[in-house]
Amino acid sequence: KVHKIAVLAGDGIGKEVMPEGIRAVEAAARRFGIGIEWTTFEWPSCEYYLQHGKMMPDDWMAQLKDFDALFFGAVGWPDTVPDHVSLWGSLLKFRRQFDQYINLRPVRLLPGVPCPLANKQPGDIDMYIVRENTEGEYSSVGGRMFEGTEREFVLQEAIFTRTGVDRVLKFAFELAQKRPKKHLTSATKSNGISISMPYWDERVDAMCAGYPEVKHDKYHIDILAARFVLSPERFDVVVASNLFGDILSDLGPACAGTIGIAPSANLNPERSFPSLFEPVHGSAPDIYGQNIANPIAMIWCGAMMLDFLGYTNAHDAIVSAVERCLVDGPRTPDMGGTADTTQVGMAIASLI
Amino acid sequence: KVHKIAVLAGDGIGKEVMPEGIRAVEAAARRFGIGIEWTTFEWPSCEYYLQHGKMMPDDWMAQLKDFDALFFGAVGWPDTVPDHVSLWGSLLKFRRQFDQYINLRPVRLLPGVPCPLANKQPGDIDMYIVRENTEGEYSSVGGRMFEGTEREFVLQEAIFTRTGVDRVLKFAFELAQKRPKKHLTSATKSNGISISMPYWDERVDAMCAGYPEVKHDKYHIDILAARFVLSPERFDVVVASNLFGDILSDLGPACAGTIGIAPSANLNPERSFPSLFEPVHGSAPDIYGQNIANPIAMIWCGAMMLDFLGYTNAHDAIVSAVERCLVDGPRTPDMGGTADTTQVGMAIASLI
Ligand SMILES: CC(C)[C@H](C(=O)O)[C@@H](O)C(=O)O
Ligand SMILES: CC(C)[C@H](C(=O)O)[C@@H](O)C(=O)O
Repeated sequence: KVHKIAVLAGDGIGKEVMPEGIRAVEAAARRFGIGIEWTTFEWPSCEYYLQHGKMMPDDWMAQLKDFDALFFGAVGWPDTVPDHVSLWGSLLKFRRQFDQYINLRPVRLLPGVPCPLANKQPGDIDMYIVRENTEGEYSSVGGRMFEGTEREFVLQEAIFTRTGVDRVLKFAFELAQKRPKKHLTSATKSNGISISMPYWDERVDAMCAGYPEVKHDKYHIDILAARFVLSPERFDVVVASNLFGDILSDLGPACAGTIGIAPSANLNPERSFPSLFEPVHGSAPDIYGQNIANPIAMIWCGAMMLDFLGYTNAHDAIVSAVERCLVDGPRTPDMGGTADTTQVGMAIASLI
Repeated sequence: KVHKIAVLAGDGIGKEVMPEGIRAVEAAARRFGIGIEWTTFEWPSCEYYLQHGKMMPDDWMAQLKDFDALFFGAVGWPDTVPDHVSLWGSLLKFRRQFDQYINLRPVRLLPGVPCPLANKQPGDIDMYIVRENTEGEYSSVGGRMFEGTEREFVLQEAIFTRTGVDRVLKFAFELAQKRPKKHLTSATKSNGISISMPYWDERVDAMCAGYPEVKHDKYHIDILAARFVLSPERFDVVVASNLFGDILSDLGPACAGTIGIAPSANLNPERSFPSLFEPVHGSAPDIYGQNIANPIAMIWCGAMMLDFLGYTNAHDAIVSAVERCLVDGPRTPDMGGTADTTQVGMAIASLI
């Protein structure tokens, strides 16, 4: 079987790291005999927007829906297109219309990566953030009244459905059940956000009955953020709403020193639609054009993509190569080295 | 003039740290000749709730509105009263009905306090979080539909008014203007939360025209949380919505190692209603009853209260005493010592 992958490099450093992501996946594909067919798209991107007034053609869904996965760089160029226009016109459409309701982000403290926390050793941080990816605080429902006057106000709905909450909780409980520690933490804020978050807690309580081996606890997001800094070793699988998951999945990698190299998977577990794999970092206009972006996040995304396609051995081979490169170099400037994007990508590909 | 202060110790360790807060304020009042009259209330508290079915009597506003300040311990006892009931029945009522629209929280890395971040020195972290405290994501508007069925969902509004946003921004810009660095950071999430947060950004842009000396920037909350861990020294005054401010004002103190000793002020800057001073820590049921809670947050709140009443010298004297106690001891167990709440409180009072 040949797997059809759509390549959506996007903007800025998305375009620079993408070739290295492809190089790593190709290397693993060769080693493990996996058939991959790449198809490159020039959209979504802010350049496309400037020419066409939209981030993607109207038939984007038809063009993409039969791919096995979307390999995504980064979108956004705030100097020319406001972020909420570029993101809602692309990434957030994919998540919602391809029903990629899980955003999965591994957070690990790896050897060779300088950790901003004192006294932490590799292995001390090893968790997954499971983020709800289609609803919650990221709604498109709301509006503005008394525009331009002193009485002006805006409303924006947060929307939590039983379907939406239960399916992300189920995914997280099942992931926790497979992990050695079998520990699930739920992020909430039911003491302050008094309608939606008590409902979230209620669904967690209902769900945990089905997973008696999983130890579970809950933290309000404020103290949970603090705990990520003070005792990250206590977390295993953390499940969170769209917004809280967004915050925790930048904060977690920051605590592990890996904000520039963290991957994420936007999954439709039922495979009714293609899943999307993207670095946590964005398009980084400030460093674009110098070929110094760290390609590791993109490469790690390639590993997650192969895992989702069924090739755990290929995933493991790529992750091992990344780990060795982090220890032995070469390194891009963000990791204290002098190598460029291509050199790091080629080094990892040859380790695979 | 005699200042009338209402003492609302609340639940759990609120009751243990309150006497030490009072002791410190009294010591400063004696030294600087300030007249204080204390009036103690047994509500709000979860015990009161268990007896009366509500956290406070119906005429709480009439009883409290003529005080010069509310000195508040902590409320919450989740084993008997759910947090959203106890908090919305007390603290959140005060904030909203006494229009305490500023929640001000200093975050400083102090000598003698172990910092969880590597390679940070005292002085490296020195910022104020200015949190909107009455509206935004903490609304009480919304509801549930199709209850108990598979189609169940909840809606909760986030509500941002021009009045509410502009006044917190104004307070923050004015604070930034008085600080040596004159640097203001706005927390946003306009790339994902696409209606309310672009409005927030718009009001920041409108406000900054009036403060040409203030350098300002904005960060999305996910990357801002990461930056608190990676480079907290770059922040001076951070202004944020109710929820984002809540998260940042636990995360900031965590990064500075002071989560257990951080104070906060809920201010009505116009003084139409009493302002409220409360530790960031909660009622801590797990350590209540042993008299080991750290009283420093409560004492520091006393300093902020005296500052707000016009006694900057008294504020500074209390904060210096706290700083000396952090270096020389005695210390409660959370700071690695063996002293109890009273011993630390008495030591600080005698330093004042
Ligand atoms: C207890 C809770 C409702 C409260 C809040 O979220 O505002 C607390 O976390 C705080 O920061 O004062
Ligand atoms: C770019 C932005 C809309 C997005 C999000 O908030 O989901 C990003 O931060 C992420 O985490 O993928």
